[in-house]
Amino acid sequence: MKKMQFLENIWYCAAYTAEVADKPLARMICGMPMVLYRAESDEVAALEDRCPHRQAPLSMGNVIGETIQCDYHGFLFDKTGACTHIPRQDRIPAANRVDAFAAVERWGFIWVWWGDQSKVDGTTIPDLSWTADENRRVQYFHWHVNANFQLMADNLLDVSHVDFLHKHSIASKIDPTAKQAEAPKVTMETKVKGDAVHSLRLVHNTMLAGITAAWHGSEGPVTRVSTGKWLPPNSCILKLQFEDENGDINETINLDHIMTPETENTCHYFMDWTWDFGGPDGYPDHDDVDREQRSLIECDDIPMVEAQQRNLELFDNVQDIPVKQDKFVNRVHKVLQRLYAEQGITERVEVTRMAAE
Amino acid sequence: MKKMQFLENIWYCAAYTAEVADKPLARMICGMPMVLYRAESDEVAALEDRCPHRQAPLSMGNVIGETIQCDYHGFLFDKTGACTHIPRQDRIPAANRVDAFAAVERWGFIWVWWGDQSKVDGTTIPDLSWTADENRRVQYFHWHVNANFQLMADNLLDVSHVDFLHKHSIASKIDPTAKQAEAPKVTMETKVKGDAVHSLRLVHNTMLAGITAAWHGSEGPVTRVSTGKWLPPNSCILKLQFEDENGDINETINLDHIMTPETENTCHYFMDWTWDFGGPDGYPDHDDVDREQRSLIECDDIPMVEAQQRNLELFDNVQDIPVKQDKFVNRVHKVLQRLYAEQGITERVEVTRMAAE
Amino acid sequence: MKKMQFLENIWYCAAYTAEVADKPLARMICGMPMVLYRAESDEVAALEDRCPHRQAPLSMGNVIGETIQCDYHGFLFDKTGACTHIPRQDRIPAANRVDAFAAVERWGFIWVWWGDQSKVDGTTIPDLSWTADENRRVQYFHWHVNANFQLMADNLLDVSHVDFLHKHSIASKIDPTAKQAEAPKVTMETKVKGDAVHSLRLVHNTMLAGITAAWHGSEGPVTRVSTGKWLPPNSCILKLQFEDENGDINETINLDHIMTPETENTCHYFMDWTWDFGGPDGYPDHDDVDREQRSLIECDDIPMVEAQQRNLELFDNVQDIPVKQDKFVNRVHKVLQRLYAEQGITERVEVTRMAAE
Repeated sequence: MKKMQFLENIWYCAAYTAEVADKPLARMICGMPMVLYRAESDEVAALEDRCPHRQAPLSMGNVIGETIQCDYHGFLFDKTGACTHIPRQDRIPAANRVDAFAAVERWGFIWVWWGDQSKVDGTTIPDLSWTADENRRVQYFHWHVNANFQLMADNLLDVSHVDFLHKHSIASKIDPTAKQAEAPKVTMETKVKGDAVHSLRLVHNTMLAGITAAWHGSEGPVTRVSTGKWLPPNSCILKLQFEDENGDINETINLDHIMTPETENTCHYFMDWTWDFGGPDGYPDHDDVDREQRSLIECDDIPMVEAQQRNLELFDNVQDIPVKQDKFVNRVHKVLQRLYAEQGITERVEVTRMAAE
Repeated sequence: MKKMQFLENIWYCAAYTAEVADKPLARMICGMPMVLYRAESDEVAALEDRCPHRQAPLSMGNVIGETIQCDYHGFLFDKTGACTHIPRQDRIPAANRVDAFAAVERWGFIWVWWGDQSKVDGTTIPDLSWTADENRRVQYFHWHVNANFQLMADNLLDVSHVDFLHKHSIASKIDPTAKQAEAPKVTMETKVKGDAVHSLRLVHNTMLAGITAAWHGSEGPVTRVSTGKWLPPNSCILKLQFEDENGDINETINLDHIMTPETENTCHYFMDWTWDFGGPDGYPDHDDVDREQRSLIECDDIPMVEAQQRNLELFDNVQDIPVKQDKFVNRVHKVLQRLYAEQGITERVEVTRMAAE
Repeated sequence: MKKMQFLENIWYCAAYTAEVADKPLARMICGMPMVLYRAESDEVAALEDRCPHRQAPLSMGNVIGETIQCDYHGFLFDKTGACTHIPRQDRIPAANRVDAFAAVERWGFIWVWWGDQSKVDGTTIPDLSWTADENRRVQYFHWHVNANFQLMADNLLDVSHVDFLHKHSIASKIDPTAKQAEAPKVTMETKVKGDAVHSLRLVHNTMLAGITAAWHGSEGPVTRVSTGKWLPPNSCILKLQFEDENGDINETINLDHIMTPETENTCHYFMDWTWDFGGPDGYPDHDDVDREQRSLIECDDIPMVEAQQRNLELFDNVQDIPVKQDKFVNRVHKVLQRLYAEQGITERVEVTRMAAE
């Protein structure tokens, strides 16, 4: 297996809760094939997805109590990766074990610690506490993307794409060739605080269209308020609000987009979409949100990002040319550059040709 | 991207006219991902298929006037590859551009100049003027082939394959094991004129079968007259006629087979089939020709050539053993050898194991 | 083509008889693309699958008498690989030939000699004479497996997997977590005789379940008697019997599993299933055996072995950890180690991480 280098001693999102139920789940994280299983006690374990006997994937087996059984020859392993039973043999060699990864279930996601397992720090899981707010509804998603996880994250860090890539769904009403002076005014601020990067982007006096108009439920111009917070390795914690002319905000959507590398050129895209509003007809309900977000992300974003990935492989000697709207992206890349350097990762996968700020 | 070397300062066929209409067309030519689009003025442009901002393929976008718009963030580019509009930003960096390739529409095809764009020479597009003859009908084709473009061209340069590979469609009636003395007499002449290679092949006193018999419409032996002209990079300009016993020719078919490399091991196969005959029942009409030619080329030729390609990869140490019927092929290979040498192309992809004459 | 090294001067199974009938069969053996064809005389020939003229696969052609005709330009080749006819040309260059491989049809299989063709030795084909016993019925199988042939063979050399991988079909009734003292007693003996490895494994006083119970047709505990004989390159000649409490054996099944490498990481899996029993209702008939064995091997064994192959590629620095039940496997690996060494094969493909005994 090609050795890739990913940021270590940090939590990567590995699944959302409902993905790990009765059956073990095979999932590759940072190039490591893992099996996630939910034991009888409801605790979730993450192990290397192999039986040390003959390298059969444990994920093809079944959960028995607190252990997982290899389907090939019936060996059992506990949550620490130790073999606890070999059929027709009482002695179990100490070497008969696999690596375990700390796994924590929080905010509807399962987080796995990548790096030194003696340094596990549960306090560094991102705060997504709105997902637990009983006055809100939450819908969870998982996509597999054939692109590097940074390309997918960059998509969320530059919401200026919304007016073009999503012109038939969540864009504002715009003239695609309007000069700056003729378009709604946009203001954007970004700030780095430690390893986090914050962004506030306002589109003033704009007319909602498509799905956003349906969410808002009334006509007239609004200010689109996009608040962003990025956390390493690649969580894009976004909030979208529509401010009326009189300053009222009636809708708050938390959209947490969490990217986890599967391999160098593929990733897992997790999302929760958490909302606090709804019309008298119940719209948008869970099914509406599921349909709308799948449509957007599966038809617009993922095909575009996968096409970027292919082009980066085809055009191997070109550099991106950043523009003003890329400020948030650039600051994130600069933090990443520092973090990789701090970990001595020189073989960092160059996931993007975008210069750091 | 692996650097391949193709003949330069020459026109490659990139599409037939109808392929470039309302929507941009993504097409890789000589290993270069290009976007072809038809502007409002009806002129066709060919650009690198990437936006310099984030490397999104321009072919996923739309035509606006004379420009093409990137679908990701809305940048516009004109036919020279220059960026003419960046949303929410008035200043456009000069570096914000991509390469453009000269594109000319002629004889129902779109031709793209590969090499030094200051040396574009519109006079060197092959003459296919019969496609514009109002007394003839034309049907255009495009196939994608998983084989080197020379292997596909060689297929057309050796029509002796017709009696075997196409034994159920356009072959003459033959005995597959007949000794030379027992088979219809074949005469063949070839001649090199500059970069062109000409061929004249006659099969005397032969009985038509299958589709060719249906075209000809009457029984009795004929002389099959196959005239061939090859032009670099790989245009096989063929003519097929059936001469009656009394010397009359009632059918002339121009079949222009034009091969364009996509990559080292894949190619585009373009064809026009131009005919001047037809029975009182209208046969063969456009649908007949489309069905017949697709059947022939998709079921017989392309599978065979793709199988050759696979075998060239599997048997990497064998040489072809040419026979008398390969004279046209060999002379073409000899011209190609000279042309590549003249361009100093030493890393020429060895597309065939057939020795030059 | 990557040069792999396989044991030489030995017979590899290439097909079962019914696979080579009217049409030539393309089959890659030890990395060599071969064509197998049955001549008019009923003899089977094995040639390189290419025409020396332009490298078209001969397997796309047809049999004419004792020869095979290339479908591209009509050349004929005999069973020795020599060209016997070139259309429109009487002279045949001596170089116009391909390699032939000795091919013998025996026990319902076609065996091909890999290595020095001057050392062909028909006496070393494995004895599967029960397939010719008129009191038995035989069903033949061929599968293509995306795994190294040794991994697939190891599956048959360790029947302890039956109770887990086949728990829903041919397992005994077991408690998957039973300690050794609580489970049916198992005895196992193995012995090396020259290049052969023999194994006898008894599971005492066990209750049959699923399909095995249906075969046996009566309740009550039995002794499962598994006799195994392994022969290089990778034939697993197995026999399964159920011994009643009174010592009677009413069913004998010969299961010959013969593995032939296609490439380094893919193989052909041939099997005959030969049985001497059957209920008054005819069960199991050929259709029953075909359905049952396909179900077992296609749903359980092959997916597991292909998953092992993927894991060996993903986890490239792990060693298997053998257990007591692997004794037969280990002794086979030790013989293989000696045989490869005797042939000076140092670039042996490491097909498994299992240490030799």
